[in-house]
Amino acid sequence: MPDTTTTLANLKDAMRRFVAERDWEQFHSPKNLVMGLSVEAAELMEHFLWIDNEVSRQVVQQPAALGEVADEMADVACYLLALANTLGIDLSDAILGKLGKNAQKYPVEKCKGRYRI
Amino acid sequence: MPDTTTTLANLKDAMRRFVAERDWEQFHSPKNLVMGLSVEAAELMEHFLWIDNEVSRQVVQQPAALGEVADEMADVACYLLALANTLGIDLSDAILGKLGKNAQKYPVEKCKGRYRI
Amino acid sequence: MPDTTTTLANLKDAMRRFVAERDWEQFHSPKNLVMGLSVEAAELMEHFLWIDNEVSRQVVQQPAALGEVADEMADVACYLLALANTLGIDLSDAILGKLGKNAQKYPVEKCKGRYRI
Amino acid sequence: MPDTTTTLANLKDAMRRFVAERDWEQFHSPKNLVMGLSVEAAELMEHFLWIDNEVSRQVVQQPAALGEVADEMADVACYLLALANTLGIDLSDAILGKLGKNAQKYPVEKCKGRYRI
Repeated sequence: MPDTTTTLANLKDAMRRFVAERDWEQFHSPKNLVMGLSVEAAELMEHFLWIDNEVSRQVVQQPAALGEVADEMADVACYLLALANTLGIDLSDAILGKLGKNAQKYPVEKCKGRYRI
Repeated sequence: MPDTTTTLANLKDAMRRFVAERDWEQFHSPKNLVMGLSVEAAELMEHFLWIDNEVSRQVVQQPAALGEVADEMADVACYLLALANTLGIDLSDAILGKLGKNAQKYPVEKCKGRYRI
Repeated sequence: MPDTTTTLANLKDAMRRFVAERDWEQFHSPKNLVMGLSVEAAELMEHFLWIDNEVSRQVVQQPAALGEVADEMADVACYLLALANTLGIDLSDAILGKLGKNAQKYPVEKCKGRYRI
Repeated sequence: MPDTTTTLANLKDAMRRFVAERDWEQFHSPKNLVMGLSVEAAELMEHFLWIDNEVSRQVVQQPAALGEVADEMADVACYLLALANTLGIDLSDAILGKLGKNAQKYPVEKCKGRYRI
């Protein structure tokens, strides 16, 4: 199921089933899940540790490395989905709402081409 | 737009527009984006720093705190979406594929009720 | 050399030699080093991921696990020493100065037994 | 007290007093401390987020920024010292021991000028 047809609810359901089948809800406190998310974020970061920004862009041309990176991104996403399930959060709503806040915080006319105001 | 109707493609498009309007693709190297993701993961973690696992579950009953946590989760998600855009990765595919691998790595009969095999 | 007789200058020198012998100063930009430090912090965190606070204290009675934790702590420390070398920072001075600032930020009369004011 | 005369034992003692005066040992479980360390590592990382490796080296010529970075490094170090106190670990011993292991893992003849073997 590709990004064009998969909803966040589909992904949250898939994660919920995976966790329920293993009886893992007991370990899925918010504290544990955010720690796990941070650990996976670091594993993703490790792929880009000793290289320059420009070199890091070349990973798109390296299928094997790109597959590993996609797997690490999926791990981060899984923790995020599990946390959304535990906390009953609508992620789409949170993301689109935050993008709206960020659009006000970083107005185009002040931020165009600059990473800080 | 809630999780039930929002696709990953919708969210990636919203993120892509936000970045393009600000001409920020130049800063969105994979190296920079994974660093940013890790910083946001830490900000999310900070909300649960000094408390026990059980206490961390009570955040669901605290609307103000829960809203802040949802905002931090959205920040993590935005970096993940931006990285998927930069690398041309289908996130749904990566997530569902990784859940399949994890299902083999953590078979139900060995993992039920245990956080490690 | 134990903590009672080892100065920070001794440790920084040991790290500096290790790096110089391998001609690694070229990779030791502050950006790379802080990423590496954060990756090692996550590896340290992974040892305490799925357990409760009280259980995490029991690691002191488990020599093998404690040894692994000490090794991860050393990895974090090595990146900190390398960064201090790259930036020419006196770490003792920075630590004792920061403790002084924190003593003002968290006055005993307001903080005794509380993790926040 | 500069790096040339300050021992790790001096720094651990300073940290131990700071914690004891506030009756904070109760919050200093290994799990909490490694989370805190990781949060501080991310705050340190944030200073170098959107820039290239070469630009990150220029922080040595910017006294104000360098002072902020030194403060973040001190925060990371304080968590490391607190963890060493909680776990009864000799940090100098751990660091010098780990450098010895790393010297075997990364032999000079294979690693000179390369960040991986």
